[in-house]
Amino acid sequence: MENFTAYNPTKLHFGKGVTEQLGETVKEYGKKVLLMYGKGSVQKNGIYEKVIQQLNSINAEIIEYSGIKSNPLVNDVIDAAQIGKLNQIDVIVAVGGGSVIDSAKVTALAIANNTDPWAFMKYKVKPQTTKPLIAILTLAATGTEMNGAAVLQNHKTKEKIGYVSSLMYPAHSFLDPEFTYSVPKNYTAYGIVDLIAHSLEAYFGEGDASLSDRFVEAVIKEAMEYGPLVLKEPTNYELRAKIMWAATVALNGQTSHGRKYGDWGVHDIGHNLSYLYDTPHGATLSIAYPAWLRLQKNRIHDRIVKLGNQLFGTNSADETIALLEKFFKSLDCPVRLADINIGIEKKEEITKQMLNNQIDGMVHKFTDDDRKQIVELMF
Amino acid sequence: MENFTAYNPTKLHFGKGVTEQLGETVKEYGKKVLLMYGKGSVQKNGIYEKVIQQLNSINAEIIEYSGIKSNPLVNDVIDAAQIGKLNQIDVIVAVGGGSVIDSAKVTALAIANNTDPWAFMKYKVKPQTTKPLIAILTLAATGTEMNGAAVLQNHKTKEKIGYVSSLMYPAHSFLDPEFTYSVPKNYTAYGIVDLIAHSLEAYFGEGDASLSDRFVEAVIKEAMEYGPLVLKEPTNYELRAKIMWAATVALNGQTSHGRKYGDWGVHDIGHNLSYLYDTPHGATLSIAYPAWLRLQKNRIHDRIVKLGNQLFGTNSADETIALLEKFFKSLDCPVRLADINIGIEKKEEITKQMLNNQIDGMVHKFTDDDRKQIVELMF
Repeated sequence: MENFTAYNPTKLHFGKGVTEQLGETVKEYGKKVLLMYGKGSVQKNGIYEKVIQQLNSINAEIIEYSGIKSNPLVNDVIDAAQIGKLNQIDVIVAVGGGSVIDSAKVTALAIANNTDPWAFMKYKVKPQTTKPLIAILTLAATGTEMNGAAVLQNHKTKEKIGYVSSLMYPAHSFLDPEFTYSVPKNYTAYGIVDLIAHSLEAYFGEGDASLSDRFVEAVIKEAMEYGPLVLKEPTNYELRAKIMWAATVALNGQTSHGRKYGDWGVHDIGHNLSYLYDTPHGATLSIAYPAWLRLQKNRIHDRIVKLGNQLFGTNSADETIALLEKFFKSLDCPVRLADINIGIEKKEEITKQMLNNQIDGMVHKFTDDDRKQIVELMF
Repeated sequence: MENFTAYNPTKLHFGKGVTEQLGETVKEYGKKVLLMYGKGSVQKNGIYEKVIQQLNSINAEIIEYSGIKSNPLVNDVIDAAQIGKLNQIDVIVAVGGGSVIDSAKVTALAIANNTDPWAFMKYKVKPQTTKPLIAILTLAATGTEMNGAAVLQNHKTKEKIGYVSSLMYPAHSFLDPEFTYSVPKNYTAYGIVDLIAHSLEAYFGEGDASLSDRFVEAVIKEAMEYGPLVLKEPTNYELRAKIMWAATVALNGQTSHGRKYGDWGVHDIGHNLSYLYDTPHGATLSIAYPAWLRLQKNRIHDRIVKLGNQLFGTNSADETIALLEKFFKSLDCPVRLADINIGIEKKEEITKQMLNNQIDGMVHKFTDDDRKQIVELMF
């Protein structure tokens, strides 16, 4: 067991109607609110209106920044931060999924430190402070609502990268499972894949942490039991609640205690695919994980078997990988690049991206040959 | 799934040598330190000296309050608070197990609010603020290092009761598994029973929370796998670490999310036994849990079977109870009152205590007849 610090300052409000406390919570931080959201789905499903009502109830001054893309761009963060600074906002309220909340996290840093956000993201400048962030989650997937991580892409540098800072935990997060009723089937499935992938990144990390292993297995079993059901019953409260909470827990720290760090190689592959083809994050992971496991099969054979034994009752690494892939397929998620209409003619382009950005895991390191092989394995 | 708030502000430092950061951490809060500990075992095993060195390194002014009993008394808290107030301390450093840290939690409230601590404990006065508390844990058992609960007894009112306040989370907790090497075999075993009991109190709580159920099962499996081993190898770092972390997780919230509350009926029985005979907390639980399960067997049959299925692969409630009892026995823990030399002649006294204090669970309520039956079942 590795030394670790267990600390998570986010206050997370979970359940039916929890956003009725949003106004009072925002008020603790001030009245000048930078309201960030995406491309308008929150307006269609009525969540925007609920948030505005809450903010109006405390006579908040609302400055909006909308249009955050599902693969979020650092340029939006730069623009949002400028607006936030000009208006001297007190607090950010972010309404959306991972892309919006991640953007808001980095925006909060950029406002408070008056610095180019990409300089943080590349660990060139260390932020000293931040603006308080209140998140209203509308998509169960990334776990951003209860951690200090964010992922953004930058077209100038041709990168999509993650960044972690203890300053980026939301002060409060509001999770009402009903807010995810209108998430379409494919994005619901991508969220399930994402939460499983987060659990696996921890599982294949560095350090022997038996209790965290058990928690990983618990979270994945939860997702495998209830994930397929929620796709059939998208307005079943209990099912939405189970998946929403599982997604939070998959990346709020408790599957990682006792490890030095997770691996995150599969995420690096996925981010680069998203960068190239604007592929939804979860869809890149259902393609990349089976490929990664096949690459690592002989290197971490026993670990894969331990997982397979817990999830599927098998003692075969091959069967474990096949059954995981089969599960992703059962959710109608892609497991090969062809499934997202990327043909073999793109092989060179993808390989170049992987080599140029030297994609890597933190524990299971890639050679250039691995990088090429991973691309092969995704076709 | 019930609505809930997930929030735990304690910063917990886990691993070998973590207390080397103690001095710097204390310094953040000030230099006038109320140092609380028990009856001297921390002096024998060298932990006291390490703490003093750390406090000296920041030139702290140390005011000591020692002699806290293993079944801690509210009178000690009243005295410690008076000393703390007189000396206008900045921060409390508590070195010990649950009894010392629980006492320190209530002492911190009593100093900051200048109020009789028993008035908080009986929920008659609501504390408004507190003094910062830094805990150095020397016993894996109660989970107090990462929660807002405390248990004290009061000889005047003939009660031993628990109290919960969000103000009572330690600001920091330091958990070095090596600090538990010298815990004797029986107390190590009681700690294992205690952490299992905490998990079960959540399991038999109110509300359907499937992921929290899985976490309960995970924590108990961890304790059942490594608990017997640590008794054989008390200076095995990995084993001590696993049990220490499992004890924290058993009561830091993550087995309860999605439930309204746990049951805590067994703890109420145990506290009253401890009150009467100064029985160690864990020893009361290994006696009371099998008795409670036998009382509830037909009322919550399916729930007991679910547990048994996960832990022992059985579909019988009777066998589940028998195997849990057998596990406690295998740790050399008492499972009947006779095992702690309490003979049948005490039956009336015990029954009177249970009836007078109207012991109860929060979910599974007792009638007076149940209270009598529970006593019978413990003999």
